[in-house]
Amino acid sequence: MARQIPGHEQPVGTTRTLDPGSAGGPVKRTVLPGGLRVITEQVPGVRSATVGLWVGVGSRDERPAVAGAAHYLEHLLFKGTGRRDATTIAEEVDAVGGELNAFTAKEHTCYYAQVIDEDLPVAIDLVTDVVFAARCTDADVETERSVVLEEIAMRDDDPEDLLHETFVEQVMGGHALGRPVLGNQQSIRHMSGRALRGFYRTRYVPHRMVLAVAGNVTHGAVLRLVRKALGGRLDGDTAPMAPRAGRARPRRTRSLQLCSDDTEQAHLMLGMPAPGRHDERRYALGVLNAALGGGMSSRLFQEVRERRGLAYQVYSSVAAYADSGHLSVYAGCQPDRLGEVTDVVAGVLADVAADGLGDAELARAKGQLRGALVLGMEETAARMTRLGKNELNHGRYLSVDDNVARIDAVTGADVAELARTLLRRPGGVTSGVVVGPYAHDEDLPDELHEVIA
Amino acid sequence: MARQIPGHEQPVGTTRTLDPGSAGGPVKRTVLPGGLRVITEQVPGVRSATVGLWVGVGSRDERPAVAGAAHYLEHLLFKGTGRRDATTIAEEVDAVGGELNAFTAKEHTCYYAQVIDEDLPVAIDLVTDVVFAARCTDADVETERSVVLEEIAMRDDDPEDLLHETFVEQVMGGHALGRPVLGNQQSIRHMSGRALRGFYRTRYVPHRMVLAVAGNVTHGAVLRLVRKALGGRLDGDTAPMAPRAGRARPRRTRSLQLCSDDTEQAHLMLGMPAPGRHDERRYALGVLNAALGGGMSSRLFQEVRERRGLAYQVYSSVAAYADSGHLSVYAGCQPDRLGEVTDVVAGVLADVAADGLGDAELARAKGQLRGALVLGMEETAARMTRLGKNELNHGRYLSVDDNVARIDAVTGADVAELARTLLRRPGGVTSGVVVGPYAHDEDLPDELHEVIA
Repeated sequence: MARQIPGHEQPVGTTRTLDPGSAGGPVKRTVLPGGLRVITEQVPGVRSATVGLWVGVGSRDERPAVAGAAHYLEHLLFKGTGRRDATTIAEEVDAVGGELNAFTAKEHTCYYAQVIDEDLPVAIDLVTDVVFAARCTDADVETERSVVLEEIAMRDDDPEDLLHETFVEQVMGGHALGRPVLGNQQSIRHMSGRALRGFYRTRYVPHRMVLAVAGNVTHGAVLRLVRKALGGRLDGDTAPMAPRAGRARPRRTRSLQLCSDDTEQAHLMLGMPAPGRHDERRYALGVLNAALGGGMSSRLFQEVRERRGLAYQVYSSVAAYADSGHLSVYAGCQPDRLGEVTDVVAGVLADVAADGLGDAELARAKGQLRGALVLGMEETAARMTRLGKNELNHGRYLSVDDNVARIDAVTGADVAELARTLLRRPGGVTSGVVVGPYAHDEDLPDELHEVIA
Repeated sequence: MARQIPGHEQPVGTTRTLDPGSAGGPVKRTVLPGGLRVITEQVPGVRSATVGLWVGVGSRDERPAVAGAAHYLEHLLFKGTGRRDATTIAEEVDAVGGELNAFTAKEHTCYYAQVIDEDLPVAIDLVTDVVFAARCTDADVETERSVVLEEIAMRDDDPEDLLHETFVEQVMGGHALGRPVLGNQQSIRHMSGRALRGFYRTRYVPHRMVLAVAGNVTHGAVLRLVRKALGGRLDGDTAPMAPRAGRARPRRTRSLQLCSDDTEQAHLMLGMPAPGRHDERRYALGVLNAALGGGMSSRLFQEVRERRGLAYQVYSSVAAYADSGHLSVYAGCQPDRLGEVTDVVAGVLADVAADGLGDAELARAKGQLRGALVLGMEETAARMTRLGKNELNHGRYLSVDDNVARIDAVTGADVAELARTLLRRPGGVTSGVVVGPYAHDEDLPDELHEVIA
């Protein structure tokens, strides 16, 4: 099962094999000076490699005044380093036909490059250069400010994105986890170069980072390239940072929020707080989510789309942070059918809260999660992500087989108990958001007010 | 190089090896009775398989009165067959953790399933069942009518999707290629079950179809499963249909269209007709597109985003149909900067029209296309798509190495000549569309009127 190897139990400079290759190639881990962890998976049969440098910093680490700093910084790091300007960075990666990009989330930021295997040196050199040696000049901060503002505007023009951000704000209450990763117009307009450089200096330290590589690579070659790129910057015997804990307590108040927008569809999200990633119920939560709204045979898809044709898109999803999370249901429908859709969704939730899942349904939900795990192994980017997230979030390696075993161990009783806790009516649904063509709260259908009440 | 094996030169029931495994596993092709082509690629090192049944029918085959029929039918085929109702179809694929879905385009429709390798029999049985034995009852037509209308509404709520559809309508003039794949509210409201069943009966015939499979499979096993699933339905010595030709002649009139919408950003698309897929200039077009707006080092990204911070998203793209196509540029920006963005974009196009590309730029654009091709080989779904599209569109197999050789053969002079033809100013840009918060055409900036004039 899971091999837990906390950083302080593995001496700096040594390498351990986390998996001899049970579901692909061997997985190895080395702790370098400064506490930088390097984890690789040598994948047989591919001609490519994906390199990801994970930093354990995200929007939940921001004070409200600098909301969006982690993401703004992510932009800034591509604007130039001591050795390269922005154009050179872009030219080098395009010349080898690679992809160089990054994403910022609530609890981490990841810089990655996907390349043909022979271009691994380019990928490692570029990713480490932007993360360790960005200049972050005031001129770059100014140019990038308007780009980030455009990104916020684009997000607001997408009803589903706007809905999702507003929902998370509602369900996570006043906690930093509830704030949008992008920040807001005001915080971005006022962000100073000094604040961003301070955030960079204090947060981007080797013991908060994991370099994960998957593809046609060897662990030794990756280590040599990392040492060559970063040798002078890695120093000391700092232990890698332990997985994030956190003590978020989402308020359990209820809220129904309307974002008036002149859209064709009404976009609805309903949901509630749910267990975080260190909660043992997270596998049961995955199974419950799959059965509720994870696939075409799920209750929501069948009841809302297949039987009644009320929506094109309807699904449920979960998010798990260190200490908290949420479960939500999305549906997009004609504005005059929002009441009916709400009723059908609430009915599905109430049924599962009362009776749990049937045996065939439980088996199907597990099969679905199992299949998604195995199919996700095709891409080196997905494997790299597994390596990085497992290390950063759990401080250990969980193979696909480990995960499948944990999913298989979930019982109907586990799911039924979790469903009773989360979905009971009244009270289960704590947060609702609508983006759609309604002027006032009172224009929203009664069914919606009732389900949140 | 490319191995051209027109169906009528390969006797029904025989198998040919198109590629012994130069860039992956062996590729084999068999023509079955009725003219159904089966093409497989045995991919080493993966635990999965993707099955795609391609039908050479799309929205360009519709009369205006039944606009959207091909896509509507795609929905309908999942509603039930002689052996399965919609719920059973969904349950069977979810139980094995697979993905079963379909997409409709202007010239083809593809039904596909991605599964763990051991579930290949389920994938082939499901895909062939829905494509060959759908019931298409009037009750199903009614339920699915509202789902398709929701899909249209959702498309209209996404500014970039709306922009793109409107642009294609403009640039393709009155031709069927210009009509949206989804149809329109009116055509969908009036579509009869009888019309859809007629479309299904006459268009969904084996000699228009290609079954493509990539993954941990053997050609023999796939043939056995297809014969088992379809044996009784495959009959006669009809030759496979030749690749689509077509004689679309996009009008070269100019148009600037505004879709007034209360969005945060102005969304802009500018473009012109371009060579189709049977035109020998298509590789030069790919290189030109990559250099213009394909990556981070492209002229548009550098000038619009990197230097001036005017947009978060800016890119160019090409579409190639049998007999025509288009090249377009997208940018999303603040409404009051639309004039400036238009000017910068027009300047980039004029520069390339006048001077072509530099040597380093040409090499980089080729490197980018080469990398994307190789990286695209990671996924069995991408390999399956290559097999299906090559056969349907070109009647032959082009390996990744073949493609790379053709890209490498493009000269600076080829690109310069194409750029002069397409991008010259005035006259190059024939079509422009804006989605944004402007009430009237006259509110659009002068720069925009000038670039189309």
